[in-house]
Amino acid sequence: MSATAERALRKLVREYQDHNSSTVAELEAVPTPLAFSRFVAANRPVVIRDAGRETQVPALERWTDEYLVDKLAERELEVSVTPEGNADAIVDGVFVEPANVQMRLSQLLEKLREEQDKPVSTAPVYYVQTQNGNLDAEYLALLDDVGRDGPSFARKVFGEPPDVANVWIGGRRSKTSLHKDPYENIYMVARGTKTFTLLPPTEAYCLHERMFPHATCTFDPSTASFTVSRTTPPLSLPWIPVNPLLPDLASHPRYALARPLRVTLHEGDMLYLPALWFHFVEQDVGFGPGGRGTRAAIAVNWWYDMKHDGLLWATFGMIRRLTLAVDGREEDDGEE
Amino acid sequence: MSATAERALRKLVREYQDHNSSTVAELEAVPTPLAFSRFVAANRPVVIRDAGRETQVPALERWTDEYLVDKLAERELEVSVTPEGNADAIVDGVFVEPANVQMRLSQLLEKLREEQDKPVSTAPVYYVQTQNGNLDAEYLALLDDVGRDGPSFARKVFGEPPDVANVWIGGRRSKTSLHKDPYENIYMVARGTKTFTLLPPTEAYCLHERMFPHATCTFDPSTASFTVSRTTPPLSLPWIPVNPLLPDLASHPRYALARPLRVTLHEGDMLYLPALWFHFVEQDVGFGPGGRGTRAAIAVNWWYDMKHDGLLWATFGMIRRLTLAVDGREEDDGEE
Repeated sequence: MSATAERALRKLVREYQDHNSSTVAELEAVPTPLAFSRFVAANRPVVIRDAGRETQVPALERWTDEYLVDKLAERELEVSVTPEGNADAIVDGVFVEPANVQMRLSQLLEKLREEQDKPVSTAPVYYVQTQNGNLDAEYLALLDDVGRDGPSFARKVFGEPPDVANVWIGGRRSKTSLHKDPYENIYMVARGTKTFTLLPPTEAYCLHERMFPHATCTFDPSTASFTVSRTTPPLSLPWIPVNPLLPDLASHPRYALARPLRVTLHEGDMLYLPALWFHFVEQDVGFGPGGRGTRAAIAVNWWYDMKHDGLLWATFGMIRRLTLAVDGREEDDGEE
Repeated sequence: MSATAERALRKLVREYQDHNSSTVAELEAVPTPLAFSRFVAANRPVVIRDAGRETQVPALERWTDEYLVDKLAERELEVSVTPEGNADAIVDGVFVEPANVQMRLSQLLEKLREEQDKPVSTAPVYYVQTQNGNLDAEYLALLDDVGRDGPSFARKVFGEPPDVANVWIGGRRSKTSLHKDPYENIYMVARGTKTFTLLPPTEAYCLHERMFPHATCTFDPSTASFTVSRTTPPLSLPWIPVNPLLPDLASHPRYALARPLRVTLHEGDMLYLPALWFHFVEQDVGFGPGGRGTRAAIAVNWWYDMKHDGLLWATFGMIRRLTLAVDGREEDDGEE
């Protein structure tokens, strides 16, 4: 029934790869809005090396431990905690939402310092990954250090201020599992590094998305132990099970057709991550300004609304529906 | 076998329509390159009213009959001639390439004047539609009147000078049948009007493209009679049989799903016609500068290479292949 759909999807994956670079474009200087607009038009990622320093983002000079602790003061921050650093990910066939704890920044930095000299750690992994626009809320005191609008070349091309801006703070064991966002994304590393594994929207077919039961993790600080509980009433959601670092091609054979792009951002680098690109994120830690302080991975991102006109949204919908058909899954919107 | 493909194509047509305007955007002033780049990024057409006057295209002031005849002097021009004005179109189930004759511009203008007062004419229809870059060849003497690069807002966004630029000269009976070009196109009317019927690349499925036998028309000027001959050895080519002015929904039922956009350009107006958009073109005649001279339809277009990276090329390929599968046609590239 779906042989035609499968052939079309496989050919799409290959034809896209034939006409597009196998690496992420890199710029050594901040582009003009017009030059940047070509990447947006093509829905292609680009790294702009040291764009944060070139555009004088104050965070890169200001964000010492002392400054951050002083600015955030006694504020209790929401921090995810997981056994191994994989929040919002598939664990043993279940999608597990991480436990959340409240702590002050000084306490979080202490947690990060505790693991910084251990080559192998089994301690709980703490990660600020609220991604709900925390720069307008918990981290409002840091807003002037990074700006609400993101870099001006992006603001001008997207035409509107970002819908959401977030701060991310964690250690080297945190990973973000493969997913996509319906946003145009500008990502800047302020401390440490972030390594992105990127796949274009055309490769949705290669990722074996399927439904998983939803569970929530709870954390008992007194024993540092975790409990995973299925959500009741049972809830399920679509997620991607592939781990790009160690793909299981026996279970996920279509991933062999994918051509992941990898790029590492260092302090001050910015990445344009186009809407609907799949991304998996690893990070490593670095000192703050002046080469001192807690080794941490700190980043900021600005999410701009994606455009739903043009071809991207409608054609991605077709890719998704054909992939569902190949897998014998119902369309989730009930339309035909 | 292809029910999945057909369902996906129909849903694509509808979803694109749901998220995009049913009319062509119109601007009253020439856009900045950045503003124009948004239309290119979205692969959406836009009309810029009177852009030719605003950017001071000299043709709009200079192209009187006398000026044009003087500039082109004794040069013999290639002019298509057809019985009813439908060059490169399906006639009685056959794709007919028009006859071509050579004549001086003064002779062509005389032909156009001959029909200008007749409400119904059965005389042969003459049309300059060489579209082989004639502005660099037969019409080189007019190059300075319109410029080789097209308007600067377009030149800057496309990043390269146009690959091809053409002059088009004809009367009100000439039509261009529904087709697409693998070019980004800027079209400017210099005299008369052009009415475009436009369909997005997502609506390829609605157009019932199929293979037709190829034939060539010859013209005997002494009797003003035409002869259509099948090409030998037999040749066939894919073409769209739908006439958007009078669609035959019994033969072409999928056209009922299409949502054609219509827009009329007047003297000095420019249209951005995005790559891979299907277009059908009618025209009407108008006087030259100063409201005098032969009533004619005269236009110029600049074709810029389309980008093959990004999503447009690869996803259009998928739409084309799924449509072929629905129709039980083989893929024409032999790959699977």
